[in-house]
Amino acid sequence: MGRTHGAKHPGENLPVELTDPVIFAARRERLRARMAEENLPALLVTHAANRYYLSGFELADSQCNESVGWLVVLADNKKWGRDLLMTDARFTDAAKRLWPVEDTLIYGGGKHAALAEVLRGRGVTTLGFDPRAVNVFDYEALREHFSLAPVSGVVEGLRLVKEPAEIELLRAACGLNHRVMRALPEVLVPGMAEAEAAWAIERLFRDAGAEGLSFPSIVGAGKNAALPHAIPGEAKIGRESLVLVDAGCRLSAYCSDQTRTFWVGREPSERFQDTKRLVMAAQKAAMQAIRPGVKYSEAYRVARAVFEEAGVAHQFTHSLGHGIGLETHEGPSLAPRAEGVFVPGMVVTVEPGLYDADWGGVRWEYMVVVTESGCTPL
Amino acid sequence: MGRTHGAKHPGENLPVELTDPVIFAARRERLRARMAEENLPALLVTHAANRYYLSGFELADSQCNESVGWLVVLADNKKWGRDLLMTDARFTDAAKRLWPVEDTLIYGGGKHAALAEVLRGRGVTTLGFDPRAVNVFDYEALREHFSLAPVSGVVEGLRLVKEPAEIELLRAACGLNHRVMRALPEVLVPGMAEAEAAWAIERLFRDAGAEGLSFPSIVGAGKNAALPHAIPGEAKIGRESLVLVDAGCRLSAYCSDQTRTFWVGREPSERFQDTKRLVMAAQKAAMQAIRPGVKYSEAYRVARAVFEEAGVAHQFTHSLGHGIGLETHEGPSLAPRAEGVFVPGMVVTVEPGLYDADWGGVRWEYMVVVTESGCTPL
Repeated sequence: MGRTHGAKHPGENLPVELTDPVIFAARRERLRARMAEENLPALLVTHAANRYYLSGFELADSQCNESVGWLVVLADNKKWGRDLLMTDARFTDAAKRLWPVEDTLIYGGGKHAALAEVLRGRGVTTLGFDPRAVNVFDYEALREHFSLAPVSGVVEGLRLVKEPAEIELLRAACGLNHRVMRALPEVLVPGMAEAEAAWAIERLFRDAGAEGLSFPSIVGAGKNAALPHAIPGEAKIGRESLVLVDAGCRLSAYCSDQTRTFWVGREPSERFQDTKRLVMAAQKAAMQAIRPGVKYSEAYRVARAVFEEAGVAHQFTHSLGHGIGLETHEGPSLAPRAEGVFVPGMVVTVEPGLYDADWGGVRWEYMVVVTESGCTPL
Repeated sequence: MGRTHGAKHPGENLPVELTDPVIFAARRERLRARMAEENLPALLVTHAANRYYLSGFELADSQCNESVGWLVVLADNKKWGRDLLMTDARFTDAAKRLWPVEDTLIYGGGKHAALAEVLRGRGVTTLGFDPRAVNVFDYEALREHFSLAPVSGVVEGLRLVKEPAEIELLRAACGLNHRVMRALPEVLVPGMAEAEAAWAIERLFRDAGAEGLSFPSIVGAGKNAALPHAIPGEAKIGRESLVLVDAGCRLSAYCSDQTRTFWVGREPSERFQDTKRLVMAAQKAAMQAIRPGVKYSEAYRVARAVFEEAGVAHQFTHSLGHGIGLETHEGPSLAPRAEGVFVPGMVVTVEPGLYDADWGGVRWEYMVVVTESGCTPL
C-alpha cells in the first residue's frame, strides 16, 4: 500500500493548503476559455500537478509509472455534461472529500473503456490530451474510442501566472527557506560530512513545518560545489572552505528553491569573495531587467553579460532559472533560447553561478515574483 | 537546480549501494538474451528504475515530467556497437563516474535526432520501446527516425527475480523497518496526532540510516485505519485505540514496505484481537501457499478463503500484495486476476487487511522472499 502526499508536521502559524472548491472551479473556467479557442470539447488531464491544480485531487502520483487518477474537463458543461474525476477504489474516500460522487468514475482494469462509455454517451467523440503526459499504451487504448487531439501545455499555460493566494503560499515556503538558510552558518562546521549537513537541513525544514523537501538538497563542499549535480556524500567540510547549499521545501503543496554559498572558517578567500560579488552582480542585473514584456532570454543575456565583461562567462554553465509553483521546475525557463516574455504574477528563480572544477563554485538564488513594474524577491 | 537521489545519512554497518559495473553489465547480458528472442536489435530504456537497474545511473527522474536520461541497449555489441547512455549536461559528471565517455551521449535540445544520428550511423533502424514508459511526444519524434517496436515489461521481467545481493539489500531495508516498528509502541501515545507520529516514524528511519521513506507513511488512528489511503492528519490517537502504521524506507536504493496495527492503551478490544487474529491467519495461510509454481492469484484466493470462512471477505478490499525492489510497487501483483506463478528469488509483500468504516481496520504486512520450497519473511 502507499500514499502519495507528504504529511504535514504541525507547525506554527503556517498557511494552509488551498482547498476551497471555488478556486479549482475558477481555474477550470479559465481552462474552458482556452479550450473554446482551440475548439476542443473535452480535455483529458493526466499530469499529476495539472490534475491537482484543477481539482485539488492528489498532487502526486504514487510512482511515475502509477497514475492515481485523471481529470476530464468539458468545454461546455451544459452541452457535454459535468467535469469528471477518474480514480481507482483506493482513492474513493479521498475523491469523495472534494468531488461529487456522481461525477466520479472509479475504474477497475479498463479505465479507457469506462471513460469512453461515459463520454460517448454524452456525444463527446474528440478528446484533447497532452502528448508529453500520455504514454503510448494509454494513447493506443484511448484511440480505440476517441479522436485524440494533441494540445501541449494548455494547463501549464494557466499555471505560469500565479494567483495572489498562490504567491502567498510560495512566499511562505520561501520564508521557511530564509529561516533555514539563516540557521546554516551555525550548522555548517569543519569536519561535518555533506550528507550529515543535508540531513540537518532537512530536519530544519521539517521542524519548521514543511511537508518535506521539494527536491533532494545539494550540499557541495569545496570542489564539489562545481558539480551541478553534487550528491551530498562523505566528503567533509574543510577548515576554511566554501559550501554550496541548494535546497527547498514543500509547504501547503507549494515549492521553494534557494541556493546560498557559505564560507566556513574565519577568512573567506579572495577568490570566493570576488566570485560571490560577481555572481551577485549578475543576479542583480538580471533582477533589474525582469519586468513585464521583457523576454526570458533577455534576463539570461543580461546576467551572462556581467560574466562576459569579467571574462568568466564560460564558467556559467546552466540557464538563469525556472518557474516554480506546485512543481520545483515549471515554466517559464530562463534559458538562452527560451521564447516568451515575463507577465505579472510569474514566480521564477534567478540563480546565476560560476564553477571551476579545480576550485569549486558559487551560486546564489532568489525566488522572485514579477510585479507590474519589475520583480520582487520572495 | 535539483538532484534526483536521496542523500544517505551516515548509519552504522549498513550495506552499501551496488555500484560494481560488472553487476549492471551482467543484467544487460540477460536483457540481450531476451532481445535476441524478440529479434530486437536495440532497446530504448526510458523508465528510471529500469535505467538504474541496467546501468547504475540515477534511480529517479527529477520530476515525472523531466527525464534525466535514457539508456540504449544493443542486442549485439559487435554488430551494432556498444550500449549508450544519454543524458544532459547537468549529469556529465555523474555519467562519467560509471559509463565510458565515448559511449555517453550528452544531448541539448534535440535528443531524438542526436540518438538517430548515432544509431543510424551504426545501421540500427529498429528501436524497441516500452509503450507505458514513452510519452506520445517522444514517440512521434522518434518515429521520424526509427521503426519503433513496442515491447512491454521486458526489463521488469528481469527485475521480478532478485539477485542474491538484491535480496540482502531488501533484507537490510526491511531490517530497518523491523527496528522502527519495534520502537513504535513507545512512540505512539494517546493524544499524539497522526501527522506527528508520521514525522516521528520518518526520523526513526533516517536516524537509522535510511536514505528516505519509500512512500509517505500511513498512520491511521481508530476509524481512519479503514481508509486505505489515510493521510496522517491532525486526528489524535485516543486513549484506548487501534493505530494502523504502513511505512517503509529506502536503503541503498532498495525499498521496504511493512504494515503493523497497534493497540494504544491497556486493553486491546475483543474486536481488535479477533480481527488481528483473523488477518494473521489469512497471512499465514497465504505464506504457506506461496512457493515456486503456485499462481499469484492462488495466494490471494487462499487468504480470501480464510476471510470467507469467517464471513468477512467483503471487508478485504484490496489485493494481497505486490513485488518490491527498486520501487515500492513492482511486479508481480498478488491480485485475484493476476497471471503468472511464483519463482524463487521473487520478493513480495503479503498484506491482508479487514476494514470497517464505522470501526477501523487491521492490516498486517510481511515482505517475503520466495525460496526453492516456499517463502521466508525478510
